[in-house]
Amino acid sequence: MNAMLKADTPLYLGIDGGGSKCRAVIVSSDQQILGEGLSGPANPLRGMKVATDSILSATQQALTCAGLAFNDMSRLVAGAGLAGVNVPQYFQLFSDWQHPFKTLHLTSDLHIACMGAHQGGDGAVIIVGTGSCGLADVNGQLIELGGHGFPYGDNGSGAWFGMQLLHKVLLSLDKLAPQTMLADLLLQELAAANAMELVAHFMHATPTTYAKFAPLVFVAAEAGDETALQLVQQGAGFIADIANRLLSIQPPRLSFIGGLAHKLLPYLPAQIQQQVTPALQTPELGAVWYARSRNQTQSIAMSL
Amino acid sequence: MNAMLKADTPLYLGIDGGGSKCRAVIVSSDQQILGEGLSGPANPLRGMKVATDSILSATQQALTCAGLAFNDMSRLVAGAGLAGVNVPQYFQLFSDWQHPFKTLHLTSDLHIACMGAHQGGDGAVIIVGTGSCGLADVNGQLIELGGHGFPYGDNGSGAWFGMQLLHKVLLSLDKLAPQTMLADLLLQELAAANAMELVAHFMHATPTTYAKFAPLVFVAAEAGDETALQLVQQGAGFIADIANRLLSIQPPRLSFIGGLAHKLLPYLPAQIQQQVTPALQTPELGAVWYARSRNQTQSIAMSL
Repeated sequence: MNAMLKADTPLYLGIDGGGSKCRAVIVSSDQQILGEGLSGPANPLRGMKVATDSILSATQQALTCAGLAFNDMSRLVAGAGLAGVNVPQYFQLFSDWQHPFKTLHLTSDLHIACMGAHQGGDGAVIIVGTGSCGLADVNGQLIELGGHGFPYGDNGSGAWFGMQLLHKVLLSLDKLAPQTMLADLLLQELAAANAMELVAHFMHATPTTYAKFAPLVFVAAEAGDETALQLVQQGAGFIADIANRLLSIQPPRLSFIGGLAHKLLPYLPAQIQQQVTPALQTPELGAVWYARSRNQTQSIAMSL
Repeated sequence: MNAMLKADTPLYLGIDGGGSKCRAVIVSSDQQILGEGLSGPANPLRGMKVATDSILSATQQALTCAGLAFNDMSRLVAGAGLAGVNVPQYFQLFSDWQHPFKTLHLTSDLHIACMGAHQGGDGAVIIVGTGSCGLADVNGQLIELGGHGFPYGDNGSGAWFGMQLLHKVLLSLDKLAPQTMLADLLLQELAAANAMELVAHFMHATPTTYAKFAPLVFVAAEAGDETALQLVQQGAGFIADIANRLLSIQPPRLSFIGGLAHKLLPYLPAQIQQQVTPALQTPELGAVWYARSRNQTQSIAMSL
């Protein structure tokens, strides 16, 4: 048996629990990845049962993958970054959860993304995917911005771009705004003949549905469409505002992650682009860094 | 027995079916109101069973109120203006409905609002309530604008104002936008201490929930708050654009209806305000005008 898997060596579990999937990773005390797992949504907004089932299922997979037994779950020092736990009622629900781990250290998905991006060190991160948000962690000072949810928040995100796209197209089809290539692109994409048929596609649309159409805005902007260019500049403006606030506490590094990040980056001011560095590790490894740091703090606290 | 209620005189039923309630009115051939009824939502978005149950329940009440029997339902020449029937799939569902009336003439809730406002005559109407939309009916030419749904449409409506309010407050609390009285008003209204607690109130918010907070924007605008003033001007701009498009086909009258109309009117350009005239009748009476006009058209067609 691998020495690292001996019953008395600490094992770390990192959980990245988002709105659509949950990733788990098990890491040894000398930072070797032993196993990984993937499951469904772990956002408590979908209900605690769904969220905890996803976490346990991804963990079980990671244990199996690591050649560990189900019983080893009680050895895991877990760090979990979960979408939604920044809402006090959901943080409380998770704090009350009778989890099967040795300990469970909870924080937001954004925080572990930042710890992953900078390998546990200080830095800032901006996520631009279906949603958008930013965090800087410098000398223990934490700034968290944006997010908040859709449709009133998540400015400059994929869902925001998709909703703005539909908004502009409907105004244009009503002849209340100038003609735009966005209308042709969206009607064609959905094989729709008019506004009514478009709207039928978005009747019960989720942020994910809106985000699917965000790339059309960038296609039209690159082709010089004025409406699309204005939208891209407006979205980039929201993200630049977040970046500038985060940079104000001088993080040593700034990383962008999320599916829309590479599309938006070229539209940000040069002074921001220059400071962007690639993320070094995944959010679930960031959750492991978080678990380590919290465990050390506790050990120190207990030894005082 | 009243001569008007004889079995061989035509009776008209007007239905105004919205997202939250359904109104019915029964009118004699000489335009006397015989009875009225009120029930729940008649928007097919909530399901056909809910919608048709609401229509039948309001009609039954109107029959009872008119001293008519259940069997008289088959005498009613019905006009119905229903939210959602401008979506082809819902129009089809209602067209296929095995209704108990003599005939049923279907159109949108917006169209009957316009016919009611102008007593069946030509004119234009703009609804600014939870949603927003406009229609002009001039010499058989029909222009219908806006609506489309929330959050991508219904610009300048109560739901739109509520969502923009929350959007601006969250940006301000994140220090990504200037301080605004809107933040104090909204936090106080919801007894919330911060952005997290605010957002918890809007997690699964409907357009109606957002619309409830729209008046706060007008309170702050009247107190001179810059952010609120910009929002009111932006919302009024959307409504002014609709008004100008409708006025382009020269309707003899223009009426504003809906809960937010009187708040927005003072912010519209004077040249629009000058043309606004009060609505003369209710939408359900507009539905009776619609039934009459359609029935005449058919009678003429059949007598040719």
